[in-house]
Amino acid sequence: MPATSLKLHVGSDITVRAAADCPIVAMLRPASGLAQWLSSETYAFDPWVPTTEYVDGYGNLCQRMVVPQGEMRLRVEATVETEPELAVNPGAPFTIVQNLPDSALQYLLPSRYCPSDKLESRAREIVGTASPGYGQVEAIRAWIQAGIEYRYGTSDASTDAVATLERGAGVCRDFAHVGIAMTRAMRIPARMVVGYLLGLEPMDLHAWFEAYVGDRWYTFDATQAAPRGGRVVLAYGRDAADVAFISNYGPLETVAMQVWVEIAPPPRPLPPAPPPLAAPA
Amino acid sequence: MPATSLKLHVGSDITVRAAADCPIVAMLRPASGLAQWLSSETYAFDPWVPTTEYVDGYGNLCQRMVVPQGEMRLRVEATVETEPELAVNPGAPFTIVQNLPDSALQYLLPSRYCPSDKLESRAREIVGTASPGYGQVEAIRAWIQAGIEYRYGTSDASTDAVATLERGAGVCRDFAHVGIAMTRAMRIPARMVVGYLLGLEPMDLHAWFEAYVGDRWYTFDATQAAPRGGRVVLAYGRDAADVAFISNYGPLETVAMQVWVEIAPPPRPLPPAPPPLAAPA
Amino acid sequence: MPATSLKLHVGSDITVRAAADCPIVAMLRPASGLAQWLSSETYAFDPWVPTTEYVDGYGNLCQRMVVPQGEMRLRVEATVETEPELAVNPGAPFTIVQNLPDSALQYLLPSRYCPSDKLESRAREIVGTASPGYGQVEAIRAWIQAGIEYRYGTSDASTDAVATLERGAGVCRDFAHVGIAMTRAMRIPARMVVGYLLGLEPMDLHAWFEAYVGDRWYTFDATQAAPRGGRVVLAYGRDAADVAFISNYGPLETVAMQVWVEIAPPPRPLPPAPPPLAAPA
Amino acid sequence: MPATSLKLHVGSDITVRAAADCPIVAMLRPASGLAQWLSSETYAFDPWVPTTEYVDGYGNLCQRMVVPQGEMRLRVEATVETEPELAVNPGAPFTIVQNLPDSALQYLLPSRYCPSDKLESRAREIVGTASPGYGQVEAIRAWIQAGIEYRYGTSDASTDAVATLERGAGVCRDFAHVGIAMTRAMRIPARMVVGYLLGLEPMDLHAWFEAYVGDRWYTFDATQAAPRGGRVVLAYGRDAADVAFISNYGPLETVAMQVWVEIAPPPRPLPPAPPPLAAPA
Repeated sequence: MPATSLKLHVGSDITVRAAADCPIVAMLRPASGLAQWLSSETYAFDPWVPTTEYVDGYGNLCQRMVVPQGEMRLRVEATVETEPELAVNPGAPFTIVQNLPDSALQYLLPSRYCPSDKLESRAREIVGTASPGYGQVEAIRAWIQAGIEYRYGTSDASTDAVATLERGAGVCRDFAHVGIAMTRAMRIPARMVVGYLLGLEPMDLHAWFEAYVGDRWYTFDATQAAPRGGRVVLAYGRDAADVAFISNYGPLETVAMQVWVEIAPPPRPLPPAPPPLAAPA
Repeated sequence: MPATSLKLHVGSDITVRAAADCPIVAMLRPASGLAQWLSSETYAFDPWVPTTEYVDGYGNLCQRMVVPQGEMRLRVEATVETEPELAVNPGAPFTIVQNLPDSALQYLLPSRYCPSDKLESRAREIVGTASPGYGQVEAIRAWIQAGIEYRYGTSDASTDAVATLERGAGVCRDFAHVGIAMTRAMRIPARMVVGYLLGLEPMDLHAWFEAYVGDRWYTFDATQAAPRGGRVVLAYGRDAADVAFISNYGPLETVAMQVWVEIAPPPRPLPPAPPPLAAPA
Repeated sequence: MPATSLKLHVGSDITVRAAADCPIVAMLRPASGLAQWLSSETYAFDPWVPTTEYVDGYGNLCQRMVVPQGEMRLRVEATVETEPELAVNPGAPFTIVQNLPDSALQYLLPSRYCPSDKLESRAREIVGTASPGYGQVEAIRAWIQAGIEYRYGTSDASTDAVATLERGAGVCRDFAHVGIAMTRAMRIPARMVVGYLLGLEPMDLHAWFEAYVGDRWYTFDATQAAPRGGRVVLAYGRDAADVAFISNYGPLETVAMQVWVEIAPPPRPLPPAPPPLAAPA
Repeated sequence: MPATSLKLHVGSDITVRAAADCPIVAMLRPASGLAQWLSSETYAFDPWVPTTEYVDGYGNLCQRMVVPQGEMRLRVEATVETEPELAVNPGAPFTIVQNLPDSALQYLLPSRYCPSDKLESRAREIVGTASPGYGQVEAIRAWIQAGIEYRYGTSDASTDAVATLERGAGVCRDFAHVGIAMTRAMRIPARMVVGYLLGLEPMDLHAWFEAYVGDRWYTFDATQAAPRGGRVVLAYGRDAADVAFISNYGPLETVAMQVWVEIAPPPRPLPPAPPPLAAPA
């Protein structure tokens, strides 16, 4: 966490309906990490069902439960300290593969929605003479933002980056998939991020991507005209397959959903501190 | 999480004082897992300082920060679904070492406060003819509870299980260390647990231990006359060295501290659900 | 390792040619694990280059090096104790998702070459009335073996399971991708395996798949008419993207390659044992 | 692996005797990593017993097996590329705790044989005015080498650093424990290393320690008058409890043991390369 931070209050309220008991894995709990600090949260269900949590191979918190037949509501709220401004570093150079950390290598591989192996020549055209590294990723991001139309209803859960390019339209997850696939095609590690973005219009859960250039991950969002901070991360992965808010293993319908992100009000003052110990421990 | 659960509201409010900037690692955030579900929490500091979090080798959440010169307050509250009753299974057999899961093997090794290599003959005397496995651990636990006096001021941060046995007195962490050391001496994996216990007198952060018998971990608490549920886990480790609430790397004084555990009041009803989606997603 | 085992001597000798320094990640070293024991190995390069090794998120050993401009030879040989017979268990039932171990869940997700989300109705047709679990996976495997032609040259590095089904032909990796995609479509975890198979015709590095039914992983190989043991695993993953023998990040040509698998000759007798210690330690 | 390397042939031949079936965990297989490359190895038993292998929380390879009643021989040989010279960096500064990588923090904690909490004032005396960081660790190392006598028979499996200081004598593991405990007392992460050292007199399996100063781990060996390369690592841990060559869970006697480390002879030339492929893959 940087010394200067922005405190956001974020939340999702989702009602799902299952025709029969339906096991799910949810990724709705933000974790504290290097770039954000979770100062409070509430994770509520109605009806209550027994739930377990585990950490997946990417470090995400995953909640396992069974949605009983009928309707179930999940409401998650959190107050998170995050970065007010995105780190922007046009000079961050391309890192040759032999110098990448081991943990970044998996983000060079093609994945379900990011078949980077099919987009190498396309990516080379787009980056043109951009400076290797950050400059190339920004060229890809800007090209997507200018050239792909943001439109609901053109894509679905099976649409990959190649299909999005053919259609010339998509939503945030499609934009991220195109950005990731082309970035990997340039041999730069790229990963999917899902979470919240302050001021997103219309407000919803959001998706963007990160690329590893220089010596760290940087954030890129092809749905936005300019770099914007105020992000709360829910999960990282190779693409949308890894980071679904809810992965359902049976028929499940979303019947209501509301998402919010706002500047957190000043915290209520803490209650009076406990009295001093008689003798310091 | 079992289908039947007990909802507890737990918290700690700690004021520390540092003569100079003092880096610390805190383990004050309960995690959801197999045996408890975190439904809400608040983690507040005053003054606020940048903080990062990581997961240690035992799966514990660890918060890294620097206590600035002067006083700092940490207040953590959580509402946790937990097990109302401890699992008790006198018939759980000794598991021969070759059948233990890989992850349990490290809990057979001696550690800083649990020099099990020095207590083998003592442990054998105590378990006597108890049935191998759960029965042996329970014999050790009962022997400690009957034979060691619970008394503040007899032990400090350098007291290990052997020293506690010599003194015949200690506090919860000392009781746990003796239990762990003797259990390991019987070639049964044992680990330290720190957290909250409903109804503890006087109320404080608490320590107990778990032993692996049959095919799972069971809870043992040598400070209590009978098995008691209502526990919230903060951290697991080999002994107190791994699971300090606060590990400080510089002089740090605790000047005030309050701990509470109570049955959570019924949750406030959720606000009205969002309106149904026009078209189901 | 089971008490009865088959000792195999396996190896690969690969010559690659790089037009310029080319970083690679190789997965050519078999690891000991639950199902195989590595009793000896040699991993040689010519020319020698500095190499590091790490363990990826699936537990595979990965060797990182840079192929210098020109030709480089990698020769890996190993003697491995493995299972002479595959475990076959037609009665192993479908495990409902809520009962799967956490570590198996990722193998339900669609991946680059196994877009299981597109094959649900096809998979349902094929399994028909096969008994849920092992029976369904075997039905898929048998259908592939009967219905897809084994033919070189029909597929390449971008061919996924859907494309293989359209073409009706492929090689071992394509057979595995179809099996994995359909198995996942039935909500059964499935993973890719690459390695060696005794008696494979023509001899080559091989690929097959595993499915999680009942309470463990079972091996399925759609290229074979009957279950065959004598396998040495090099790597596990979601699909071929994760388990390439060599992932190259620059142009790299394979100019020569030889693979062998044979019953290991009886080991040379050990040299004489060292003399007894004067006093036992 | 550095570009310049030293190729060593190392091995251990150990005969143990068990009065009854005795489960053990062995750490006798060197792994490739950042600082060494395993080019060949042989791991043989007589009699052969089924064995599995896992990776522990420190990244060590651990072999699980049961020594049957009677005698069993384990013979492990390896050829390893390693560093001919130790990295020595007197200017490497103390790294304040808040800047240490998460993974180094555990090596600040006291452990079974390294009760650093008891040695703070002693350590401060010894380091005196040495420059913080590398200089302090080297002062500790040199003090041990000058002040503690290397003598067999003064210590046993329960001897910790405090006891060694009292006795003023010990063997390599005791020297390492004192070094680690005092280094941690200075708030510098320190870890135990076991393995092979070229030219050790008398030849045996060896133990030394590493300290984290500046931005990496450096090797220190209090048994040697000057820095010496030619080391092959078998395992890392907090102290000897974590890195026993053989941890036995039942009575086990070592009846014969031989260890060797030598400059590897030039490798036999590779057999002829396979013929070129008809068409490059």
